[in-house]
Amino acid sequence: MKLDKNTKILIIGLGLIGGSYAKSLSSKGYFVGGLDTDRKAVDYALKNNIIKQGDTIPSADFIGLFDLIIFAVYPHTILDWIEKNQQFIKPNTLISDVTGIKSCFIYDLQKILRQDLEFVGAHPMAGRESSGIENADAGIFVGANYIVTPTEKNTEDAISVCKELGEILGFSSISVLSPEKHDEMIGFLSQLTHTIAVSLMTCRDMEGMAEYSGDSFRDLTRIAKINDEMWSELFLLNKDKLLSQMDLFKNSFDKLYNHIKNGECEKIREIMRLSTKERELFDKVKGE
Amino acid sequence: MKLDKNTKILIIGLGLIGGSYAKSLSSKGYFVGGLDTDRKAVDYALKNNIIKQGDTIPSADFIGLFDLIIFAVYPHTILDWIEKNQQFIKPNTLISDVTGIKSCFIYDLQKILRQDLEFVGAHPMAGRESSGIENADAGIFVGANYIVTPTEKNTEDAISVCKELGEILGFSSISVLSPEKHDEMIGFLSQLTHTIAVSLMTCRDMEGMAEYSGDSFRDLTRIAKINDEMWSELFLLNKDKLLSQMDLFKNSFDKLYNHIKNGECEKIREIMRLSTKERELFDKVKGE
Repeated sequence: MKLDKNTKILIIGLGLIGGSYAKSLSSKGYFVGGLDTDRKAVDYALKNNIIKQGDTIPSADFIGLFDLIIFAVYPHTILDWIEKNQQFIKPNTLISDVTGIKSCFIYDLQKILRQDLEFVGAHPMAGRESSGIENADAGIFVGANYIVTPTEKNTEDAISVCKELGEILGFSSISVLSPEKHDEMIGFLSQLTHTIAVSLMTCRDMEGMAEYSGDSFRDLTRIAKINDEMWSELFLLNKDKLLSQMDLFKNSFDKLYNHIKNGECEKIREIMRLSTKERELFDKVKGE
Repeated sequence: MKLDKNTKILIIGLGLIGGSYAKSLSSKGYFVGGLDTDRKAVDYALKNNIIKQGDTIPSADFIGLFDLIIFAVYPHTILDWIEKNQQFIKPNTLISDVTGIKSCFIYDLQKILRQDLEFVGAHPMAGRESSGIENADAGIFVGANYIVTPTEKNTEDAISVCKELGEILGFSSISVLSPEKHDEMIGFLSQLTHTIAVSLMTCRDMEGMAEYSGDSFRDLTRIAKINDEMWSELFLLNKDKLLSQMDLFKNSFDKLYNHIKNGECEKIREIMRLSTKERELFDKVKGE
């Protein structure tokens, strides 16, 4: 398939990310449909012109309208949905997703997928502390990173369409990684950071702390406000890779702990200089 | 002393914080002087109307001009400076500081301080990743927290002037803590967060990571760009309290680690719900 102004796009799951995809694509003139088991989310999206057509139950009449389907649902539900409902999908439809983990379901999904359909994974590296379509915002993708995660089963054409979708949504950096490499990366950059923020936020009695706090504590705990249903699932589906990244952090933290304990000033400063240098790489990309 | 428009204020140490104090107070019409061993910093401050008068060497003629002296220098230098130069200070002058740790020097300083002088500690909870007077910005204090740390030796009058100074600088919350309680609080809210950021930034090879990063990693490592000379000193001068806070975090992180390892979904979600609830307390204060 080719992505053009006639491409009809179905978003399955009208939450924060699905809603933001729909909002962005609708504002750019695409025909966007929405499927969500929650009638209120569908009605909200219709009423606010986030989607043109919506439903709560999959059917051939509705699903069959679309050329591109994007899953914006909890990872564990995708496989099941495909098994039950792929019969309704139009031949040659491209399917993608927004899921934060990949290898635990992509290979299984590609195994059961109809031969005339194609699934290419994608991960928009953007989010919000608030959830739900009411908080949807097309602006969260602008300037952010987008990762396409193809497997050997994918065609160059489908990968291209996925990348193009990222460009349309306004991502500034679009890259390609294998599902495994993606999961390792995300285990570090996204999941480890969330385990740290949550652990910091819950490590002691916080009575009266807020009025003494500077920006650093706020920065480190912004993501401690977390969707427990989604993130516990993401953590457990990527368990081994996440635990490896947590081990790396633990070793690094213990090393600094021991240098402080032993009063080894020069060793502490050495680590700080390295950390300052490494952090600069992250400035350049985002132009902080 | 009383703080009014005739009060002459001397800032010792024209770095980022000292420079920002001077900038803010000058813009509000106070007569501000600056002392710094670095001639370039003094010249820059004079040229940019950040101070009215400046010098690189303490003398009776210069130091004797001022009614309020604020130390914005490395903690270990304050005691030594007072020992050598308090002879130049005018009787009844109030002395304060901006240092990030308190109990390690305040009691010693008050012991050697001339009877006709008074020292009250204060800590502006604001900063920047960049240092030096060129980056001074009066705006960093607006909306931030300010802590006054008196001891039993301090008078109500002097504590009031210190609080007033915080108001003039634009801090939104001004509170009072003992030096010990301050150091424990800061060990948690500020120092622990810096040990975490630095450990995260240096825990693995970062090759190519920047282009896959989302906001969470950037947020958690913003403060990993760090002044190694100052922070290593702050860590080691507050060693025992910092290590206790690091222990609390380690226990919390290990707990979450084990729940993930054991696949204990409900226990992970319980921690996340607590973390979400606790983080909300920090929203309210700053109006995020």
